[in-house]
Amino acid sequence: MKALVYEGPTKKSWKLVDKPTIEKPTDAIIKIESTTICGTDLHILKGDVPEVEEGTILGHEGIGYIEEVGSSVKNFKKGDKVIISCITSCGNCTYCKRDIQAHCNDGGWILGHNINGTQSEFVRIPHADYSLINAPKDVKNEALLMLSDILPTGNEVGAICSKIEEGDIVAIIGCGPVGIAALLAAEVYKPRAIIMVDMDEERLKIAKETFGATHSINPVELKKQGIKFTDAIKKITEEFKEERPGLKDGVDAAIECVGIPQTFDMCQQIIAPGGRIANVGVHGAKVDLQLQDLWIKNITISTGLVSAYSTKTLLKNIEDGELKPEKLVTHEFKLNDIENAYHTFSNAATEKCIKVILNN
Amino acid sequence: MKALVYEGPTKKSWKLVDKPTIEKPTDAIIKIESTTICGTDLHILKGDVPEVEEGTILGHEGIGYIEEVGSSVKNFKKGDKVIISCITSCGNCTYCKRDIQAHCNDGGWILGHNINGTQSEFVRIPHADYSLINAPKDVKNEALLMLSDILPTGNEVGAICSKIEEGDIVAIIGCGPVGIAALLAAEVYKPRAIIMVDMDEERLKIAKETFGATHSINPVELKKQGIKFTDAIKKITEEFKEERPGLKDGVDAAIECVGIPQTFDMCQQIIAPGGRIANVGVHGAKVDLQLQDLWIKNITISTGLVSAYSTKTLLKNIEDGELKPEKLVTHEFKLNDIENAYHTFSNAATEKCIKVILNN
Repeated sequence: MKALVYEGPTKKSWKLVDKPTIEKPTDAIIKIESTTICGTDLHILKGDVPEVEEGTILGHEGIGYIEEVGSSVKNFKKGDKVIISCITSCGNCTYCKRDIQAHCNDGGWILGHNINGTQSEFVRIPHADYSLINAPKDVKNEALLMLSDILPTGNEVGAICSKIEEGDIVAIIGCGPVGIAALLAAEVYKPRAIIMVDMDEERLKIAKETFGATHSINPVELKKQGIKFTDAIKKITEEFKEERPGLKDGVDAAIECVGIPQTFDMCQQIIAPGGRIANVGVHGAKVDLQLQDLWIKNITISTGLVSAYSTKTLLKNIEDGELKPEKLVTHEFKLNDIENAYHTFSNAATEKCIKVILNN
Repeated sequence: MKALVYEGPTKKSWKLVDKPTIEKPTDAIIKIESTTICGTDLHILKGDVPEVEEGTILGHEGIGYIEEVGSSVKNFKKGDKVIISCITSCGNCTYCKRDIQAHCNDGGWILGHNINGTQSEFVRIPHADYSLINAPKDVKNEALLMLSDILPTGNEVGAICSKIEEGDIVAIIGCGPVGIAALLAAEVYKPRAIIMVDMDEERLKIAKETFGATHSINPVELKKQGIKFTDAIKKITEEFKEERPGLKDGVDAAIECVGIPQTFDMCQQIIAPGGRIANVGVHGAKVDLQLQDLWIKNITISTGLVSAYSTKTLLKNIEDGELKPEKLVTHEFKLNDIENAYHTFSNAATEKCIKVILNN
């Protein structure tokens, strides 16, 4: 079979490799129908994730059909259509039982990281009973594929960790694929306003027109006009003064979807008393936490990798028409054209790309 | 009447002032039976809380008897024995309804801060119906007095925010009065171990012998022995290896009760995946948040001022014999001997003082 193999920093190749086989009775082999590329794959290719060994097949998202199951797999059989979760979970360890499958003792994020991944014609999935989800035939592949990682990430690490309630004012910093996924997930909780913050006007426009954000702020434009970021937020929250009597300055929830100190800092600048900052971004450096201002504000800050405990709920939301993640897919490729897909995804801003779908 | 008046940084005096009167129909006047001194009062006297105006009577903790009530006070009448909450709450604003009374639109921490406080023979309490609690006659004054601030603070900002569950391993950084209050509050949730961390051997000894901590660590002693703090914690968590199979390094909950960057840093060094850091300490400077390590760990960090929503539950715990906060009171004074009480409390370590009680 063919697969996209990581060959060390900046190097990858679409080439012939051995087809995976069942290694443990809890494994399943999946024939990939569609896969996609994640920002994390680009990080790996930059050499930012040194534990990925040369020779590893990349990718941790995908949908497909069961080709073969190990002797102890109970929930799936050959021919079943499935969503592959980016998180492998044994279902039995303390972390799985606490719904922190991200830290499963025999799983977590291993696909396309510690073991071969989904950018391939076939993939082996350990702990199949807990790491796969039945895919209804009447849901579009574009929507199903968003359930592997990006939508549960936006929901669990973004919307759920920031405890969005009906009527809240939410700010999402970063309008990339994960920021948009957080926006879609946040909308389900019916906040009064969702303010998207990004430096790219085009992305902000899409966030409002296609994905339903109510407000947008471009910090570059603010700077040109000499307006402080906190004042821009205040102007928006004041629109809701009558519906929110007595509420103090700031947003109820701030979701960080970039991963740099400046964007984390924006969150702490605008969080209201009692507010929640949810960090979704992958950070490479420390940030300054302004605890001299925040200690008294009764806020929470959360961090985390997705655990995928909410995937089935999100699938139900899609089936009910409440969530339409298929709109995230902007580009389509054949799986064997993956090198071109990487090129497009790596130049997301100029290519107006959010997510790609690669069909086998 | 006589009261302790703040007269600018480093200056205070016990002197004759006007007795308070009802100003609003929701007010009550309390004849103080006992009050105490808080670390925050020392901060005010150092000049760290510049919004406190000269001429303000200090103190935000106390118990006493209702002397007079305003025309709209429903829950209390002359002669009732009451606990004064350090947090004044209107009971009706969005923050009060959300149990974030600390940020009440017409209250919060105002006693001995923005209005006259409790280190006085009489005190006016606004929003009496929501800011006072009926004091049962069969509970010791020493215990009741700890319900004004320190015990709800340890419980809400410490134990509840750090979501302690049965079987958890908890570390409390700082063995001062608030650290001990957090320890007492944490014990109610039945963690497997509570590790106290402090540089004072005497305080650590008291935390274990009098207040039930299971382990203690003195970072100064560790340094002398060339042992890393994280290794000392690891050694303790490994004692529970069999009861906690597969659990990764670190503590489930870390409660910061000091308020300096070094002690906050200890919390981030030792927090396990899925763990919770609760910041109780009052900080005067930013801290470095090691988000490059923490983003993936599914942790939460909480901050806050007490809201006193849990005071009645804590009172019930005291009545049931589950909590014995009276042990926090180490020294007793007459109210008019308050200058001496300040001297003792300011030299807590040498005087082996945790909390003082001042009787009117």
